[in-house]
Amino acid sequence: MNRLGELWVLTTFGESHGAGIGCVLDGVPAGLRVDEEFLNLELSRRRPGQSLYSTPRKESDRVEILSGVMEGFTTGTPLAMFIPNENQKSSDYESIRSIFRPGHADFTYHYKYGLRDHRGGGRSSARETAARVAGGAVAKMFLKELGISIFSGVFQVGEHTSDVRDFAHARKSVVNALDPLMEELFKEEIEKARGAHDSIGGAIEVRAKGMPIGLGEPLYHKLDGALGGALMGLNAVKAVEIGEGLSAARLKGSENNDPLRLEGFKSNHAGGILGGISNGSELVARVYFKPTPSIFLPQETLNEEGDEVICALKGRHDPCVAIRGGVVCEALVALVLADMALLRLGNRLQDVKEFYGKGR
Amino acid sequence: MNRLGELWVLTTFGESHGAGIGCVLDGVPAGLRVDEEFLNLELSRRRPGQSLYSTPRKESDRVEILSGVMEGFTTGTPLAMFIPNENQKSSDYESIRSIFRPGHADFTYHYKYGLRDHRGGGRSSARETAARVAGGAVAKMFLKELGISIFSGVFQVGEHTSDVRDFAHARKSVVNALDPLMEELFKEEIEKARGAHDSIGGAIEVRAKGMPIGLGEPLYHKLDGALGGALMGLNAVKAVEIGEGLSAARLKGSENNDPLRLEGFKSNHAGGILGGISNGSELVARVYFKPTPSIFLPQETLNEEGDEVICALKGRHDPCVAIRGGVVCEALVALVLADMALLRLGNRLQDVKEFYGKGR
Amino acid sequence: MNRLGELWVLTTFGESHGAGIGCVLDGVPAGLRVDEEFLNLELSRRRPGQSLYSTPRKESDRVEILSGVMEGFTTGTPLAMFIPNENQKSSDYESIRSIFRPGHADFTYHYKYGLRDHRGGGRSSARETAARVAGGAVAKMFLKELGISIFSGVFQVGEHTSDVRDFAHARKSVVNALDPLMEELFKEEIEKARGAHDSIGGAIEVRAKGMPIGLGEPLYHKLDGALGGALMGLNAVKAVEIGEGLSAARLKGSENNDPLRLEGFKSNHAGGILGGISNGSELVARVYFKPTPSIFLPQETLNEEGDEVICALKGRHDPCVAIRGGVVCEALVALVLADMALLRLGNRLQDVKEFYGKGR
Amino acid sequence: MNRLGELWVLTTFGESHGAGIGCVLDGVPAGLRVDEEFLNLELSRRRPGQSLYSTPRKESDRVEILSGVMEGFTTGTPLAMFIPNENQKSSDYESIRSIFRPGHADFTYHYKYGLRDHRGGGRSSARETAARVAGGAVAKMFLKELGISIFSGVFQVGEHTSDVRDFAHARKSVVNALDPLMEELFKEEIEKARGAHDSIGGAIEVRAKGMPIGLGEPLYHKLDGALGGALMGLNAVKAVEIGEGLSAARLKGSENNDPLRLEGFKSNHAGGILGGISNGSELVARVYFKPTPSIFLPQETLNEEGDEVICALKGRHDPCVAIRGGVVCEALVALVLADMALLRLGNRLQDVKEFYGKGR
Repeated sequence: MNRLGELWVLTTFGESHGAGIGCVLDGVPAGLRVDEEFLNLELSRRRPGQSLYSTPRKESDRVEILSGVMEGFTTGTPLAMFIPNENQKSSDYESIRSIFRPGHADFTYHYKYGLRDHRGGGRSSARETAARVAGGAVAKMFLKELGISIFSGVFQVGEHTSDVRDFAHARKSVVNALDPLMEELFKEEIEKARGAHDSIGGAIEVRAKGMPIGLGEPLYHKLDGALGGALMGLNAVKAVEIGEGLSAARLKGSENNDPLRLEGFKSNHAGGILGGISNGSELVARVYFKPTPSIFLPQETLNEEGDEVICALKGRHDPCVAIRGGVVCEALVALVLADMALLRLGNRLQDVKEFYGKGR
Repeated sequence: MNRLGELWVLTTFGESHGAGIGCVLDGVPAGLRVDEEFLNLELSRRRPGQSLYSTPRKESDRVEILSGVMEGFTTGTPLAMFIPNENQKSSDYESIRSIFRPGHADFTYHYKYGLRDHRGGGRSSARETAARVAGGAVAKMFLKELGISIFSGVFQVGEHTSDVRDFAHARKSVVNALDPLMEELFKEEIEKARGAHDSIGGAIEVRAKGMPIGLGEPLYHKLDGALGGALMGLNAVKAVEIGEGLSAARLKGSENNDPLRLEGFKSNHAGGILGGISNGSELVARVYFKPTPSIFLPQETLNEEGDEVICALKGRHDPCVAIRGGVVCEALVALVLADMALLRLGNRLQDVKEFYGKGR
Repeated sequence: MNRLGELWVLTTFGESHGAGIGCVLDGVPAGLRVDEEFLNLELSRRRPGQSLYSTPRKESDRVEILSGVMEGFTTGTPLAMFIPNENQKSSDYESIRSIFRPGHADFTYHYKYGLRDHRGGGRSSARETAARVAGGAVAKMFLKELGISIFSGVFQVGEHTSDVRDFAHARKSVVNALDPLMEELFKEEIEKARGAHDSIGGAIEVRAKGMPIGLGEPLYHKLDGALGGALMGLNAVKAVEIGEGLSAARLKGSENNDPLRLEGFKSNHAGGILGGISNGSELVARVYFKPTPSIFLPQETLNEEGDEVICALKGRHDPCVAIRGGVVCEALVALVLADMALLRLGNRLQDVKEFYGKGR
Repeated sequence: MNRLGELWVLTTFGESHGAGIGCVLDGVPAGLRVDEEFLNLELSRRRPGQSLYSTPRKESDRVEILSGVMEGFTTGTPLAMFIPNENQKSSDYESIRSIFRPGHADFTYHYKYGLRDHRGGGRSSARETAARVAGGAVAKMFLKELGISIFSGVFQVGEHTSDVRDFAHARKSVVNALDPLMEELFKEEIEKARGAHDSIGGAIEVRAKGMPIGLGEPLYHKLDGALGGALMGLNAVKAVEIGEGLSAARLKGSENNDPLRLEGFKSNHAGGILGGISNGSELVARVYFKPTPSIFLPQETLNEEGDEVICALKGRHDPCVAIRGGVVCEALVALVLADMALLRLGNRLQDVKEFYGKGR
């Protein structure tokens, strides 16, 4: 249950305060050039400690490839990657060892497993998402070969939201803002939350360009279903939209249907998916993050002994996880698309026959 | 890829205009009493043709149990169910055989599979959801034994939305309205859409009561991830929210965290899930449906030959699929919870030892 | 757990004395012509009641296709098939309702599930193998398009064994004998067992011709591993060999290695598999069946109440299940190969790029 | 496809001459004490270089636990283990870089993946089995808590075979011989093969004691099917028997059926499995290994360029892989049984209800 995908399969392991985190990527076709620079670049995009707007915790997040690559190319065997933990301050957590932090997984892990790793969330820590980014980076290398690219940005922080989608700006913005004019507002909102020892929610949009027609396996492995599952399973995510999303419920059919002409679809309310299958239009998803539960205000909670206590957290946390969430969403979309691209290969007898007709 | 679940596994088959639709439910524990009356009642809740507010197409939807039940109880072997198709009007579709209906899966199925069943959507037809309802009904029987119940209702039709959650009212409302005061407005909106040969979107909320702590397998089979995947994979769904959902992005951590006291959580912004695991609070999800793509206004599209054509549909369709969508969402939630309930059993060594210590 | 395969997935359902047995075949590529005559021919090869050498029980075994086929071709959606049960004599079993028949699954089903279907073995009955044959027949149609064919025959009945492999003879022999000279001996042995109210073991060889190089996914979905799992999971099978099999343990490396020349491998001790992957040589497996446990001699056993009783069976049974076992083994090999053929498609980046380069 | 199991899931990675090999074990219940000494002891049993009778290649095989364990106990999260490679002599393989070694996976990996790791077999090397042993060791710790233990020994080397099953002797024998009187003969046979620059086959028996009734999920995840799949998938294995095995084909039903009395089954021809489900008797399987393909005699083969060449291997290899194969078979049996033990928990409604009735 620590596994994502059917053919392009990511298995992750590791905790925030153990030896490290890592993943095994199974199903990567042989012959893919592994660009380690790009891999580490992607990790650096997720890495905390880079600005005032994310946690000051420093993680070097340099990945070691343990298997599956020979002389720079994948061999078709499992690609294992490991990111050692550094800069661990387990002692930060000793004082709250038995306390269930509000909004965190402490309570549920305790009752589910009977014991839990109290150090920084252990397995439930967002640190694990670095393994998703590593796996997603390899998926992106693969998708690039197929002409597919993925990008994202922040369109909402707290009450401030924008319809502008300047992905090039988001890429260089310290808060990944999609709207250059909202950048300052986003920063202020985050600083305000931090200053108040509080946190703030936010939302991102993720897109994929260069989509082929036909990705997605109906009826229970549809492209939108798989994206919904992967994105909703990400820490702090409370809502996911595809294409028109929530607003589709307000529209009439005549408004929401995308007319089709020779030059392509005239609109994209569908977000690039019809009947669970990509239609060649841009893939569009939006993901909504709750405010980080780690805040420094006193909060009512229980401890493992069943006492009502007041929780006062210390440590280093993101005031707005949505900022760093975009790159993880990109990785998840990449992993889902890579899986779907492989599943797609056997849909038609004619294609299978052509393959084997070549003498394989 | 026509399969949902890991241990409680639903596999469905069938098309709207073939012999019928059906499912195989694998993993149902032995000894469950199968209430056929309830099973057919659930199907009748989904069945079209019952009011002005859904399609006038009549389907009797009486289910035949083909296997897995002996003398009224499950035997632990696969439970197969079949619902023969009746009242098929394939001729309704002959005129649009080669046309890609806007907003439908025609275009994507054609390019993915090279051929497609043009009769009423074939496999992509919402008729298949009857198989989900049948499987979900058995899941509900199982969950009832564990004290879990599931219910739903419509809170939005088009622009009209309400915060009232009267699930008892929704159960008897012909449009499943959660707010008695909105009922007329919802009806009017639907009639207006129908009158204009158009359709309208809508949204439902689904809840589960009596939730135990501990359902959900982190990190890639979390309860919210699995729900997100199952619900987003349902026909016409474009957005899914858990708990606070979209609004969580607007909140501060101090507002969104649920304080915990001896008598339980003081609020439920989390929607019953922390770290992907049920926390014992009510499970709350909201699902947003696009307007039915089948409308009777002229629309621009292509046909299989690549000509630009105007599509003018005939036939019988729901003006607002959200109305009948609630019971399908209940079924999907039931299927996911049943699966999670079985997966939960092996989480702790102590529990496993107790089981085998009994002499098994 | 009633499912075989990863991409080409067979799910079966049904019991010997319920409404019928059936299967859902998921993953069949679209565009395959479904030859119903061949389908029923394969089922007739498995069908009992055709000679003195198998059970006189009559089963018509005519299959109904419930979904997945339109105008004679597969559509890429689940192909469901159903074979209604006929000629059921449940009363044959009433007298042994609470008795654990030696060598049967009665004892284990009872203690595992707490209840069981006592009528003819219920789910554990060999009747379920008709569903495998139906699924396997479709797999054979698919493999035929790729140039792969599968055949089998009996080389051992009781103590009598032969090295002759005349598969053409086996196809028309009433006992599927591979050696024309052994045919009479096999018949005599079976008649002797039947005359003594006993049964007798036997063994078959199954081969696949026209194998491409590259089928089999190392390391935990190897071709030999998958075949071993599928064949050992068949009722009454107690041993499986690949290629040289058991004898390989007696050989030296210099004897067992297959030299490779330009015209191909000079021998086939490997049975067509190296490192879990097909090497292009003929696939060779042997399967050993225990004697049918259903015998008509008095046997010591217990009943559900825990009494020591003497079991005296009545009814109609195969004196030698190996005779009809060959066609089921062919079906299982076909299902495994079809699955492997689909899994093979994504092994190399170059192939995937070519596929998508075509504009999909 | 580098994954074994459904709930207790082993994923392995690594090659013989890369950074190392490892595994991720998912599904281990929380609260299991991890005995690192035992873990390393098991690895040392598999380790080569310990006697004249296995390869003189030295591997220290000390395992690092990367995740999933806190303060000595499992936490319910993925348990990752890593064994760094040492003592690599890649240069040994440079001279045969483009040559397909007879009996090895070189040929099939080359044509399947288009490129391959030529250094010591890469992924197809038996070195990977250390990861299985590591995973199996944890499974043994778990099974021990349930009262199940697993052991093995060699009963055949080349032509020499024995019916004696002295598992205590095998444990301390340098060639794991089950028959003390055959020990010298086994050694001589192995030395003879080595002296002739050749290798020799062999066979082992593996058993499990303390088996509960009910392990195994019919019909496509039966205990014998799963064992057959796991064992046949092990390097060099060409045949697998359960219980009476091959000999069952020679017997009559009256000889092969196991009579059942109050004190238990009077014989164990079934090898502890009826209808794919454990019956409480000892589990008995036999596994036949081909002679190591790595021999030092000249052999005919091709190279990647398509030339007919003579292959003359150098390096360090086991003359008889069956000797070290037993411990790997034990590990595989342990992994399968651990998986089945977890799958067993949800078979009966009564058990599930009791579990949730406790307030979970």
